[in-house]
Amino acid sequence: MKKSLVALALTGAFGVASAQSSVTVYGTLDAGITRTTHVANDATQIAKRDNNKLGFRGVEDLGNGLKALFQLEIRYEPDTGTFESNVRPLFQGQSRVGLQGAFGTARLGRGLTAFQESVMAFEPWSGLPNVAGYQTNLQVAGYTSDPLSVAGNSANRFSNGAFYNSPVWNGFQVNVTVATKEANGNPAIIGKGTAAAPQYAANAKASANPYSISATYTNGPFAAMLAAERNGVESKLWSVAASYKPLAALKLMGSYQRQDQSHTLFTNTDTDAWVLGLNYTIGAGKILAGYGQKKPDGVLKTKQASVGYEYSLSPRTYLYVDVAQKKTPYLVTDRDDVDQNHYALGIHHNF
Amino acid sequence: MKKSLVALALTGAFGVASAQSSVTVYGTLDAGITRTTHVANDATQIAKRDNNKLGFRGVEDLGNGLKALFQLEIRYEPDTGTFESNVRPLFQGQSRVGLQGAFGTARLGRGLTAFQESVMAFEPWSGLPNVAGYQTNLQVAGYTSDPLSVAGNSANRFSNGAFYNSPVWNGFQVNVTVATKEANGNPAIIGKGTAAAPQYAANAKASANPYSISATYTNGPFAAMLAAERNGVESKLWSVAASYKPLAALKLMGSYQRQDQSHTLFTNTDTDAWVLGLNYTIGAGKILAGYGQKKPDGVLKTKQASVGYEYSLSPRTYLYVDVAQKKTPYLVTDRDDVDQNHYALGIHHNF
Amino acid sequence: MKKSLVALALTGAFGVASAQSSVTVYGTLDAGITRTTHVANDATQIAKRDNNKLGFRGVEDLGNGLKALFQLEIRYEPDTGTFESNVRPLFQGQSRVGLQGAFGTARLGRGLTAFQESVMAFEPWSGLPNVAGYQTNLQVAGYTSDPLSVAGNSANRFSNGAFYNSPVWNGFQVNVTVATKEANGNPAIIGKGTAAAPQYAANAKASANPYSISATYTNGPFAAMLAAERNGVESKLWSVAASYKPLAALKLMGSYQRQDQSHTLFTNTDTDAWVLGLNYTIGAGKILAGYGQKKPDGVLKTKQASVGYEYSLSPRTYLYVDVAQKKTPYLVTDRDDVDQNHYALGIHHNF
Repeated sequence: MKKSLVALALTGAFGVASAQSSVTVYGTLDAGITRTTHVANDATQIAKRDNNKLGFRGVEDLGNGLKALFQLEIRYEPDTGTFESNVRPLFQGQSRVGLQGAFGTARLGRGLTAFQESVMAFEPWSGLPNVAGYQTNLQVAGYTSDPLSVAGNSANRFSNGAFYNSPVWNGFQVNVTVATKEANGNPAIIGKGTAAAPQYAANAKASANPYSISATYTNGPFAAMLAAERNGVESKLWSVAASYKPLAALKLMGSYQRQDQSHTLFTNTDTDAWVLGLNYTIGAGKILAGYGQKKPDGVLKTKQASVGYEYSLSPRTYLYVDVAQKKTPYLVTDRDDVDQNHYALGIHHNF
Repeated sequence: MKKSLVALALTGAFGVASAQSSVTVYGTLDAGITRTTHVANDATQIAKRDNNKLGFRGVEDLGNGLKALFQLEIRYEPDTGTFESNVRPLFQGQSRVGLQGAFGTARLGRGLTAFQESVMAFEPWSGLPNVAGYQTNLQVAGYTSDPLSVAGNSANRFSNGAFYNSPVWNGFQVNVTVATKEANGNPAIIGKGTAAAPQYAANAKASANPYSISATYTNGPFAAMLAAERNGVESKLWSVAASYKPLAALKLMGSYQRQDQSHTLFTNTDTDAWVLGLNYTIGAGKILAGYGQKKPDGVLKTKQASVGYEYSLSPRTYLYVDVAQKKTPYLVTDRDDVDQNHYALGIHHNF
Repeated sequence: MKKSLVALALTGAFGVASAQSSVTVYGTLDAGITRTTHVANDATQIAKRDNNKLGFRGVEDLGNGLKALFQLEIRYEPDTGTFESNVRPLFQGQSRVGLQGAFGTARLGRGLTAFQESVMAFEPWSGLPNVAGYQTNLQVAGYTSDPLSVAGNSANRFSNGAFYNSPVWNGFQVNVTVATKEANGNPAIIGKGTAAAPQYAANAKASANPYSISATYTNGPFAAMLAAERNGVESKLWSVAASYKPLAALKLMGSYQRQDQSHTLFTNTDTDAWVLGLNYTIGAGKILAGYGQKKPDGVLKTKQASVGYEYSLSPRTYLYVDVAQKKTPYLVTDRDDVDQNHYALGIHHNF
């Protein structure tokens, strides 16, 4: 009877009772002094190298090897304090809940696709975005996983997704992401239509269920990935990647991607890209180096070369220097290519 | 003297010194696979069943039975990572601070009104919003507590509110919420005015102080509520509700609400609604069932029937299935009613 | 080999592994009942006295006296649950990361300028914004540190800043903040230009690097500050301030500021302001009092007088009462000055 009383009473403190929990608050704050030449904002800047995160996550042990997982992750700009790019949704990083057990991990919500999450291990900057890193522009061949979301949204996540990661069998793992066809507020995409009748109207549903599959294999110093993905406007991408460690301190890696946009383009439907790189650890220091190219067919190549150095002050904090050059071709042939140079010096702190 | 030095020095770490504290980070992440027929987005979706929260709260013991309380609560969409409905304020859930002692609990800020918070205990889905639950549409009779806030704002909270909850005396508790008349950025409400001279202009102040009162009584297996509320455009609502537990595992419940919009409408000023329901617990499972109707006078009825099943994996985590049907009448008589069917399967995790 | 496997596998829980950390969640929730006469919203309100914060911060010990620091701080309105003023960036308070050691503290990101942070110690409300406090309007002489950010942004921070605080040498400390010239999305500022050709176009870069310097000195009961600052449109401000404690319970304080806007104005380019105040502690109570004036040259004076009382329920929580009067002159001489009266009664809770 006492219990009933308490159950109805508004304590004023916390309307909904809930069992005790343990939420981990975590994140990344990376800021540096950078300069990129030949861009609109060609000036010394305070900017970031990594994506900056503030997240909340937890694991609940349900017994019998079963666990409940949740993770919510904000992304932000450290130099101005805004949400990432000042336009991203609250939990741009991810918002997922699910179960983990002997069957693997199954989650619902929003997050990186299987391909986008797997390919980072084969990128010499560990999947950091450009300028020095390769993932955003080269490694995914300019492909976007989520063309049917609001303008400014992230390019490598699925909203309304179901995410599955298998257990690791003898070094082998399969990851599958499938999204619904739900409309997510995109602007019109003309595609093979016309301005008056775009192929995908504003706030269109996907014309096929977006999916992403990656299979990874690890055997001692060797690791490899095969992946395929289709987005909401039926662009397709496949990718193969591998890494090898001839020494414990040295990791060599490479990846190749091919994108097919024939569902929305009449010409130049295929784009391919490759990235080679290495990481070499010396004491508290780590050298990063990479080179890559992207070639939309019939169009001149984009080429990028980068070197970086990270010096660890602790397992959570390092200082870094990056130098990179990106050649972006002019389509007008009588002009030279643009050589975009990039310099960065900063601090990266995980918390 | 050492102290003065430290007081002035900018440590670079934390500009304002503050005594040590203990903040609880808590929340809910609920996501499932749903389908609702006969709606604009009639498709399989990843969606939510509960309101999703990420909150921060704390209680400070001030001695002599006095406590200071605060609570800040974000609401968000798990499938896209945005704020709730992509338009809600940062702390849509609540932002309140106050004191608790022998006198009860007194708080200031934004939060659920006394009626809206009390009536949830008499709803078979415990106040979860539609589709399967009854609170949003039926149990509050389509009434909104906050019509003078910005478009898209929550319907069952007061901003600029003072909140009081009495102690529980012999099973009896009184809860009172009063809000100021402050302008909160509403769009114009024509009401009994004209488009040129709306009854409430854009960003109008309330014409009377909004208030909400609920009285609850609990005696062993029996509980009851009486409540009355008036919003900023002087719509009035009263409600009576009761629940009974013939068995420890079975809770029967019902509520009735009547809304009077005569201050802003010429016709069909009164709406009444009732909801009946039950919860039945079997081991780790819980069966939910409900039926309700809403009738704006002179207009055909909205009817809703729902059944649900929750299976607890732990005190914090459960899986659920819902099936619901809502009949919304067409005002044009030669068309059939719309039978909106709803199916949901998902996971609900408190952290 | 086991390690390689784990490194590649997507655990489904947390894509990026990170060392264990300790994040402190902290903040302020201040809400009260206020009334300010002769303003657009002249009505009893639920409002705030202090800036309300929800923050995340941490310190990592790197050994050898070196520490890594980060701090992210949300600002919000407690009465409506929105971001501060409903327009501020996510981390309006600050977003900074850096290192602290024998050399002092060096950070990058967004935060209060050296002047704005130092001058608070010489304001009788400890830097609380108006209405009763003096910092926002009088103590900084109407000067804004950040005129080249988006409309509605904070007035006393630098985005894209580098922040340095020296160690304290014999009571003496120097603080320096420098910002880049990066464009931050400001609306056009006509200045000495024309509407067609504003002196600073929309989204203009700073015409000179903004900087802020403060030097503080503390010696027993005496403290003093000298500061100078220049913003992105080359307005300049200098300030001198001092405080003295004749008794342990009594702090007397005063500050003077002068602003030069000759870079963007043809006339009335200089504004000066001064504030005098005291804090007197009696048991759990604290009396606050202040008086100040601001005089843009050629224009009548703004005058403000305030008294306040704070009663501590604990080191983290106090109740307060404020009464203030601000005389704002009408430029049209045949009208009386506006006497704006302000009353506030509320609770201030640090967590």
